[in-house]
Amino acid sequence: MKLCTFLLDGRPQAGLVMADGLINLSQALGPALSAHQPMIDLITHWATLGPQVAALAQQPASAAPRVPLVPRELLAPIPRPGKTLAIGLNYLEHVQERIVGESRTVPEHQIWFPKLANAINPPYADIVLPRVSTRTDYEAEMVAVIGQRCKHVAPERAHEVVFGYAVGNDVSVRDWQKRTSQWTLGKCFDTHAPFGPWITTADEVGDAHALEMKGWVNGELRQHSNTRLMMHNVWAQIALISQAMTLEPGDVIFTGTCSGVGAAFDPPKFLRDGDVVRVEIEKLGAIEARCVQEA
Amino acid sequence: MKLCTFLLDGRPQAGLVMADGLINLSQALGPALSAHQPMIDLITHWATLGPQVAALAQQPASAAPRVPLVPRELLAPIPRPGKTLAIGLNYLEHVQERIVGESRTVPEHQIWFPKLANAINPPYADIVLPRVSTRTDYEAEMVAVIGQRCKHVAPERAHEVVFGYAVGNDVSVRDWQKRTSQWTLGKCFDTHAPFGPWITTADEVGDAHALEMKGWVNGELRQHSNTRLMMHNVWAQIALISQAMTLEPGDVIFTGTCSGVGAAFDPPKFLRDGDVVRVEIEKLGAIEARCVQEA
Repeated sequence: MKLCTFLLDGRPQAGLVMADGLINLSQALGPALSAHQPMIDLITHWATLGPQVAALAQQPASAAPRVPLVPRELLAPIPRPGKTLAIGLNYLEHVQERIVGESRTVPEHQIWFPKLANAINPPYADIVLPRVSTRTDYEAEMVAVIGQRCKHVAPERAHEVVFGYAVGNDVSVRDWQKRTSQWTLGKCFDTHAPFGPWITTADEVGDAHALEMKGWVNGELRQHSNTRLMMHNVWAQIALISQAMTLEPGDVIFTGTCSGVGAAFDPPKFLRDGDVVRVEIEKLGAIEARCVQEA
Repeated sequence: MKLCTFLLDGRPQAGLVMADGLINLSQALGPALSAHQPMIDLITHWATLGPQVAALAQQPASAAPRVPLVPRELLAPIPRPGKTLAIGLNYLEHVQERIVGESRTVPEHQIWFPKLANAINPPYADIVLPRVSTRTDYEAEMVAVIGQRCKHVAPERAHEVVFGYAVGNDVSVRDWQKRTSQWTLGKCFDTHAPFGPWITTADEVGDAHALEMKGWVNGELRQHSNTRLMMHNVWAQIALISQAMTLEPGDVIFTGTCSGVGAAFDPPKFLRDGDVVRVEIEKLGAIEARCVQEA
């Protein structure tokens, strides 16, 4: 199943993506989904709500009315995750691509940094190029969404705690990212963590480590890889971070980018006002954003 | 005024701290405060609610009933901040204290890292010493709470966007913090961002850069400094991070620790099962936690 969050009369609603439109789950499931975090509630109570959603998916439009799917009315599937973590340098070809002024080696351990709440952005909303930098870059990534509260998850059981997957762009302001030892500020500018367009449930994805991923800028293919090329796969990621942190339904993990980022071109190809950035992942759909210069 | 969040019948309530107990603001102000984030709502609508709270503070207990203040029933003043940021190496004596295996210099720019939602902990709740490390450390810090949505705040106006201050402990798992270039995992273990005991409003604090701060372990004074010794004061901090991020009511900033952390002793004095850690800051109160070993 494909589950989205969309805006209706100014309020977020959970939706089921059908071939002929959306079924409004916030309406269909009633008070089971709160107004302030319908998707997190849906995920949290999926054991009971999932079968109801599956039953709705079988209904004809006459019994389960559809509303139009308007890309620009989609929100991030989880507009305000409890926490969002991202792994760095997780594809060998990205580690090895040449970036002026840097020499990088394969890290011994997983490197983690945050994407804070202000960075979360809808899948088709504008990406803001900050006033304080000219070095904003894209990073095509698969995103995993946690399905249940868990800690100390063994890698061989980690698949049980993933609710589904989506497409993300780990937008990065390179000079701010590298100005100190900590990447946090450069990774957390407003609008710099778009993801979506919806969550595809894990059962529908099948093998999440065998998906083609592509990133374009203005129609030019810049990134092209496959999730099988992650050095630390999603199970290893969850196993490690859950040693430190309790994961919760709706927590979001950006699983790393492949080669082809703007900083690796000579001269670098950073994002400019009006650029259109698209990320597409097999089975998960695509997200696309126009870049707009902050006033 | 002093504003806390406390648990009543399993739900968080906003409270006004009086000499003879708490006034339950969630009850007194009715639906103005939502059940899921009463303190963020209180801060967000402070322009209208603040005068109502001030009026309640003038009432005798017969008109505005008090409930007992039970330290262990306090929650973090904001149990689930939209985001929590922390600055590193912000007191010269902490930068210069000798830590085995490290040489540190005064950083040219502010260094920022996150404290994620799972780390937020009540002011008197246990700190969990993780199963996967024996190097958990304390860091006494003043905490600032943002009062309004803002971006690109000039340093000379930053005081306008601070709602109040509290006492925090930036608990740090040193081996995980230093295992990769990014400190995120080591800074974000469960329970490792206790703060409170309440928010003291900025007007009541006066000069936030002139407060004695102290940290004890088992009654031994380990940290003792003054917030005047920050290298980047709160205004400079807000000015910088608001260039990247929109700050929101209830966002939390850990403003840095002074010298005397456990890692700086020879041999190091990391936290052990049963240790009691106390942080006290002039005018803001104290928080105190027992350390318990994760099973």
